[in-house]
Amino acid sequence: MNLKRYLPILQWAPDYDRSQATSDMVAAVIVTVMLIPQSLAYALLAGLPAHIGLYASILPLALYAIFGTSRTLSVGPVAVVSLMTAAALAPLAEAGSPEYVAGAVLLAVISGLMLTLMGMLRLGFLANFLSHPVISGFISASGIVIAASQLKHIFGVQASGQNLLTIGQSLIQSIGDANLPTVLIGTGALLFLMFARSQLKPLLIRAGVNARSADILTKTAPILAVLVTTLVAWQLRLDTQGVRLVGVVPSGLPDLTMPSMDWGLWQQLALSALLISIVGFVESVSVGQTLAAKRRQRIDPDQELIGLGAANLGAGFSGGMPVTGGFSRSVVNFDAGAETPAAGAYAAAGIALATLFLTPAIAYLPQATLAATIIVAVFTLIDLPALKRTWRYSKADFGAMLATILLTLAHSVEAGITAGVVLSMGLFLYRTSRPHSAVVGRVPGTEHFRNVLRHDVELCPAVTFLRVDESLYFANARFLEETVMALATRKPELKDLVLVCPAVNHIDASALESLEAINERLKDAGVRFHLSEVKGPVMDRLKGTELLSHLGGQIYLSTFEAWQTLTNNCVKSAA
Amino acid sequence: MNLKRYLPILQWAPDYDRSQATSDMVAAVIVTVMLIPQSLAYALLAGLPAHIGLYASILPLALYAIFGTSRTLSVGPVAVVSLMTAAALAPLAEAGSPEYVAGAVLLAVISGLMLTLMGMLRLGFLANFLSHPVISGFISASGIVIAASQLKHIFGVQASGQNLLTIGQSLIQSIGDANLPTVLIGTGALLFLMFARSQLKPLLIRAGVNARSADILTKTAPILAVLVTTLVAWQLRLDTQGVRLVGVVPSGLPDLTMPSMDWGLWQQLALSALLISIVGFVESVSVGQTLAAKRRQRIDPDQELIGLGAANLGAGFSGGMPVTGGFSRSVVNFDAGAETPAAGAYAAAGIALATLFLTPAIAYLPQATLAATIIVAVFTLIDLPALKRTWRYSKADFGAMLATILLTLAHSVEAGITAGVVLSMGLFLYRTSRPHSAVVGRVPGTEHFRNVLRHDVELCPAVTFLRVDESLYFANARFLEETVMALATRKPELKDLVLVCPAVNHIDASALESLEAINERLKDAGVRFHLSEVKGPVMDRLKGTELLSHLGGQIYLSTFEAWQTLTNNCVKSAA
Repeated sequence: MNLKRYLPILQWAPDYDRSQATSDMVAAVIVTVMLIPQSLAYALLAGLPAHIGLYASILPLALYAIFGTSRTLSVGPVAVVSLMTAAALAPLAEAGSPEYVAGAVLLAVISGLMLTLMGMLRLGFLANFLSHPVISGFISASGIVIAASQLKHIFGVQASGQNLLTIGQSLIQSIGDANLPTVLIGTGALLFLMFARSQLKPLLIRAGVNARSADILTKTAPILAVLVTTLVAWQLRLDTQGVRLVGVVPSGLPDLTMPSMDWGLWQQLALSALLISIVGFVESVSVGQTLAAKRRQRIDPDQELIGLGAANLGAGFSGGMPVTGGFSRSVVNFDAGAETPAAGAYAAAGIALATLFLTPAIAYLPQATLAATIIVAVFTLIDLPALKRTWRYSKADFGAMLATILLTLAHSVEAGITAGVVLSMGLFLYRTSRPHSAVVGRVPGTEHFRNVLRHDVELCPAVTFLRVDESLYFANARFLEETVMALATRKPELKDLVLVCPAVNHIDASALESLEAINERLKDAGVRFHLSEVKGPVMDRLKGTELLSHLGGQIYLSTFEAWQTLTNNCVKSAA
Repeated sequence: MNLKRYLPILQWAPDYDRSQATSDMVAAVIVTVMLIPQSLAYALLAGLPAHIGLYASILPLALYAIFGTSRTLSVGPVAVVSLMTAAALAPLAEAGSPEYVAGAVLLAVISGLMLTLMGMLRLGFLANFLSHPVISGFISASGIVIAASQLKHIFGVQASGQNLLTIGQSLIQSIGDANLPTVLIGTGALLFLMFARSQLKPLLIRAGVNARSADILTKTAPILAVLVTTLVAWQLRLDTQGVRLVGVVPSGLPDLTMPSMDWGLWQQLALSALLISIVGFVESVSVGQTLAAKRRQRIDPDQELIGLGAANLGAGFSGGMPVTGGFSRSVVNFDAGAETPAAGAYAAAGIALATLFLTPAIAYLPQATLAATIIVAVFTLIDLPALKRTWRYSKADFGAMLATILLTLAHSVEAGITAGVVLSMGLFLYRTSRPHSAVVGRVPGTEHFRNVLRHDVELCPAVTFLRVDESLYFANARFLEETVMALATRKPELKDLVLVCPAVNHIDASALESLEAINERLKDAGVRFHLSEVKGPVMDRLKGTELLSHLGGQIYLSTFEAWQTLTNNCVKSAA
């Protein structure tokens, strides 16, 4: 039972049959064709030699098939995590240098260890602290930064930078050195891919191809661009024209690599690895959950941490880079009919074959083609309407989102995501620190009580009913004290104050002390302090506290009961 | 009106009369007598020359009388803030050196600027994020560290350290050099002060002194200890015996000093100044509020920030150290009958006179006496029963408290308070991320709905009522999705799911997206999604969202209404 939880492969492998195998293999072929250019491109985006992307698409996929719980998630290099890898490594070494590659390997290992540990400690809930607007803003902004960072490859110039400002500046300075053949290849690939994304599918359908095949054919456009531009570059010896190609890469499968044991480097990369882990996990779980729900399956977020942890450890020990579950590939895998994680293992075999036999051809692949595939791919990440939607619904959420976007664009991905998390937590704490509260009166002839400012209700001058619409805890304890004491000092005729608690889900130690202080101060002022509609779990904890033993008034099950008891001798007036 | 808010002195000064002046002056004399040894001692505790304490007790008191809102708060050097000052300056320079003194001045200036700015921006609520258990644990632990740090003066040895471990180690290494006359003076003063605190008052009362005078006389014990030991030290020329005395201090009032303009130093001290500001503010406001409530007065926390900010700026520009409102002195001031902040201004005049005429005598004051007054004073800060009380009421709050105490004792005051704040926020977020939720059924024959696990209630197999007892926001949005979808997958006969929302005070953008996702997924599964008992303000915001326009089901004002509509054709069963 427990073994099945930690080794989800045992849940499906025993009943694996030929029909499932056929479906999985078909999906794997399509995913492999998509993954080859993506893995090369995302390695380039991370500032790494292209073949590192292939290395990160073999062992990680096989390990995720054993430890992961999503049936259709496609693990491997993805755009946002690759950008974060580049940002983490930029201060350490020059892109592409052996130290830089060693840093990427170490980042994958640390991230793998963190994810596995978080999974074993069942810390999947940590991902909940990334709010939707923050993650959406972060991904949109990352998409923009990624697209901008690839323009240098389209123009064939040297440029650098980790944010829109530095990238822009660097591009403007170097644009004069643009290489014409590179620009032709880059913009050609870009236009072709944009055309394929928006026009190819309807054209194929009109030509008589059925919808599903048309969809899948459209997805092969990047590999087509890769094939054509590689052939052109080889035939015309474009490297002699100043077109930058991927160049000779080591052929053969990756060797087992040991990560650096330099403790200082581990410390330097720890925070980046944590951010990469959490962002990768959130992205992966969102895709996994959406796809699982469509087939009424479920994924286990804590086991997903272990699955992604194993994948990253696999990436690290086979000379790869940080990986996670990618959105577009997973959707293709799902649509192509993948039924079990075995599809991922078959795709790993496909990439292994490519690594063994296709690397000589890859040497002639222009970097501009890869940049074009990245730019077109990240367009789908940018969701600007989300800004408008969020603005309309909640100004606070919009604030957190905007801060995330601006900092990601203008400073760095790490600053953006950190500010978003801190700000959204702070805004939540701030909001709950000033809860909605209302003096309520009785709706005449009923047992209902409503805000005196919004409704015509009955009141009794000597009794005040105060309803607080929030759990009571340290951040609003002082607010509570001030609200109650302001009511008491304002009304000298006050004899009874009832705190109406149906929305109080919890009272922490600070709020308990505040309630005790309120009780004592009201006693000194000759006012009895009562509570009504205290929830069962809250009441259970209050038993045995000083508040209950010293309470000046009573605890009433319902506010109406308190009203009947306390307002007996009262001339009621309408508010 | 507005002027009166920013200059609270205008609220009382125009009606100030002779009777108030008399009361204030009596209180001021008593507070001055108490403040002289305290200000010297706390300067020593902060690692500063003793007269800096006097400097910090003149201008700050006068400025607080103009800008502060508490009628009875006694501002000046206090134990915890002095300890924090020492902790902030220790890494910068050797205690007592000119750079060290300049650091203390700068700390007061930065803290004063921060407090004033926070007051003008109305950021008084920031103090709410220090929970009671954290502040109580922090003050207890600081008391222990302070007492330990003073033992070196009692033994007359050289020792250092910022936490219990380093102080203890340092003391053990140096204890062999203990100086006998110092030990005699120190333990003598300690025993006398302990006797005075616990036994003197009842003795005086039995001797016929009335209770209030006995109380005030007891409070003069420290000045008596100072006088006696100073005389002894002078007569016996104890400095030639190796007893460390306060030594010659500059006589005369402090000069106006300009703080250092070294920007690097400002940056180094910024975080410490922020912590000192917030801790000082919380301590001060707690005392101020407690005393104000006793006389049915109120204080304005935001204006208190400005008052304390002015006091610290005054301290900085007159060569002093960070100050705040002290607990014991304020209580004495209150009990002695102070009626307006003018009492503080008179005490400032008293300290000014002492600075002008008593400094030659102070030269012979043994440091051991001051250490004894500190040790006895901080005993009142240590509240260990609070640990037990908190443990019994809330394990989470106890965890935050214990972490604060252990880190303060074993690492540093700054680590302790920071860990406490972060941990208590994290625990609150964690708790609200896994809210209490229950499937509810109808209490037969009523309009009430209760947890099916706790009560005998009516159920309908095709309709599930789920109540969530928490606001819905990013940290519990995924929890909500998982809870609802688990219910839906578990019951294939389900046709309607009602989310019962009386405890939902807020729905943020993340939770809105989750509700939309739940609605869509339930639709796919042939289940209608309904809401009931949505609060007015929450409903207002939901209007115009996709959730409402695409909702599979209805919104019901009451759960009973939903029950009547949805369970019409249902064979009800008891749970």
